[in-house]
Amino acid sequence: MTVAGNANFPVVGVIGGGQLARMMHQAGIPLGIRFKLLADTPQESAAQVVGATEYGDYRDLDVLRAFAADCDVITFDHEHVPTEHLRALQAEGIAVRPGPEALVNAQDKGVMRAKLDSIGVPCPRHRIVADPADVTAFAGEGEGYPVVLKTVRGGYDGKGVWVVKDEAEAAAPFLAGVPVLAEEKVDFVRELAANVVRSPSGQAVAYPVVESVQENGICAEVTAPAPDLDPALSDEAQQLALRIAGDLDITGHLAVELFQTRDGRILVNELAMRPHNSGHWTQDGAVTSQFENHLRAVLDLPLGDPRPRAKWTVMVNVLGGDYPDMYHPFLHCMARDPGLKIHMYGKDVKPGRKVGHVNVFGDDLEDVRERARHAAAYLRGTITD
Amino acid sequence: MTVAGNANFPVVGVIGGGQLARMMHQAGIPLGIRFKLLADTPQESAAQVVGATEYGDYRDLDVLRAFAADCDVITFDHEHVPTEHLRALQAEGIAVRPGPEALVNAQDKGVMRAKLDSIGVPCPRHRIVADPADVTAFAGEGEGYPVVLKTVRGGYDGKGVWVVKDEAEAAAPFLAGVPVLAEEKVDFVRELAANVVRSPSGQAVAYPVVESVQENGICAEVTAPAPDLDPALSDEAQQLALRIAGDLDITGHLAVELFQTRDGRILVNELAMRPHNSGHWTQDGAVTSQFENHLRAVLDLPLGDPRPRAKWTVMVNVLGGDYPDMYHPFLHCMARDPGLKIHMYGKDVKPGRKVGHVNVFGDDLEDVRERARHAAAYLRGTITD
Repeated sequence: MTVAGNANFPVVGVIGGGQLARMMHQAGIPLGIRFKLLADTPQESAAQVVGATEYGDYRDLDVLRAFAADCDVITFDHEHVPTEHLRALQAEGIAVRPGPEALVNAQDKGVMRAKLDSIGVPCPRHRIVADPADVTAFAGEGEGYPVVLKTVRGGYDGKGVWVVKDEAEAAAPFLAGVPVLAEEKVDFVRELAANVVRSPSGQAVAYPVVESVQENGICAEVTAPAPDLDPALSDEAQQLALRIAGDLDITGHLAVELFQTRDGRILVNELAMRPHNSGHWTQDGAVTSQFENHLRAVLDLPLGDPRPRAKWTVMVNVLGGDYPDMYHPFLHCMARDPGLKIHMYGKDVKPGRKVGHVNVFGDDLEDVRERARHAAAYLRGTITD
Repeated sequence: MTVAGNANFPVVGVIGGGQLARMMHQAGIPLGIRFKLLADTPQESAAQVVGATEYGDYRDLDVLRAFAADCDVITFDHEHVPTEHLRALQAEGIAVRPGPEALVNAQDKGVMRAKLDSIGVPCPRHRIVADPADVTAFAGEGEGYPVVLKTVRGGYDGKGVWVVKDEAEAAAPFLAGVPVLAEEKVDFVRELAANVVRSPSGQAVAYPVVESVQENGICAEVTAPAPDLDPALSDEAQQLALRIAGDLDITGHLAVELFQTRDGRILVNELAMRPHNSGHWTQDGAVTSQFENHLRAVLDLPLGDPRPRAKWTVMVNVLGGDYPDMYHPFLHCMARDPGLKIHMYGKDVKPGRKVGHVNVFGDDLEDVRERARHAAAYLRGTITD
């Protein structure tokens, strides 16, 4: 496929047709870079809006190889491309960013924990467990049940994660036949995220540390910057994320999801090596968005300013509700709040499905938060005025 | 053509594949609206980045009819669609916004002047002239030569406009066989633009009045807000633009280009009924960009906040220079200024061709202006450090 545009500008190939690719495309338009997408179907979020889209199975190396042939660099909407395929592409001279040796840490939670241990990054107590009895043994090595169990591969947005309160409940995660990681259930006061972007030549920028609120394993709300965060802890979180990015040789955006413990420590929960829900606020709240900086990083361009443009920015996810029509509520939301920034993903509405988010910025945190929550709830249909 | 996306969201059909359609698409992605483009070739600025693009001649009513069949509303990248075709589409029940009765005022400068006269809007002295001798007569009715001559249709970016200093020079504009409008050459201190957006239900918003600098008939630089503008004159300009939008029943973005005269008056130079170069600063400098507000208006959604997000925003156009590669200079520009906002149109570089623009915002006008000018000059290749 020929990718139209100014031929002096590189072609970035993005694998995966979800909303992250959609928003990367949006951020790439002003840069003039040529954007190519590998998607499953024309109805996918990014495929709806990208000019140059190919369709195929990202688990098929031949599909990946054909897609990559006319790309200057390959990057990702999701972390599900088989690591061995990425190694094969890289061996054939294709620029894969982040590379497979970095990305495997976001694909496999067992690999990630071992790697973070090896570089001295504080994590929840953890180990690979063999069976339910081993989970009980793991519990006994610490504070007992409940214990968090995770399949090492394939989980996202709460899928592949269980909080089990006894050995009977510990059986379910083993049914898939995938290795299972046990982790202590951390007694946290809140969740934070440290988002950084790193380029192949080693330049890196850190966004302000944010507070994130999860509901049912899905990011529900993000406040930037994290309110009342001790500056020393904020620095520590940013330094930790920058160190992970460097030690793991990550290219592009890295989200480090953190627990802030009751006793004032931070522990790494998850890593994501792509633009991340905890960074969506940057679209309207930072000088340079995570999407633009991710593209700049994978192209090894100098990175943009990550500083906030407003005192506070709050992002609230829009989940599907009982009503399939989310367009009609625009009338009320936009009339009520002319400063509201809506970001819809073009998806069909299903109850609980992440179909968009809203950003609101301003000087008064309570006001900003109320406006963002109101809009998300109204779009979902859980409130009607 | 089926336009993918959430079927509860409307389809906006944009006629014309230039950079304005490209930036409308970019602004439409977060709204989740479905976007469809009528372009000439896949290499056009907007066609490069829009998923749902049809190709055809906008001067052919059957092409327009087929394109419009699955659109909820039609709007424009340019003003060149024949007025009679738009009337035909409207008569067939297609929502055309702005409508032909409004748009003809942006298509035909003779119609525009007559209309503005009829509603008492201050314009340069003007009349339709029959031949070079009549131009001399027109000059004699006022301050004499030089006189500005414009073909009533088909001009843009300085094309179709002549400043003639005698009757011999006045011959050229008549060669095309199109009616010619003569205007006094206004003794202005600077050019301003008042940008407003109006919806079919009559809601309207006004952006801050900006100062624009033209070079060779092309907008070169815009400063928002216009420095040192008397608040009374600013109000007058905004009220004038809102009145024109209302009296001409304009839907969408209206740019009113103005002369500020030495004796402190404002006179209307040109009208544009679409997003306009003088509003590009809003992409990074206003809460809601002109592109988003244009889309909201044509969909009759409540309009977004037009207020500035920074004390100063400066936009400088990027013109093509002698070097075809504008990507390589990104390295220097982005490293020098991490806050720089680049907007490229994907076009091939030709000397003098408008191929992009940059926006810079901040508190210090001199600094903001220097950064924007430097980036535009470096991208063009007229400076090398």
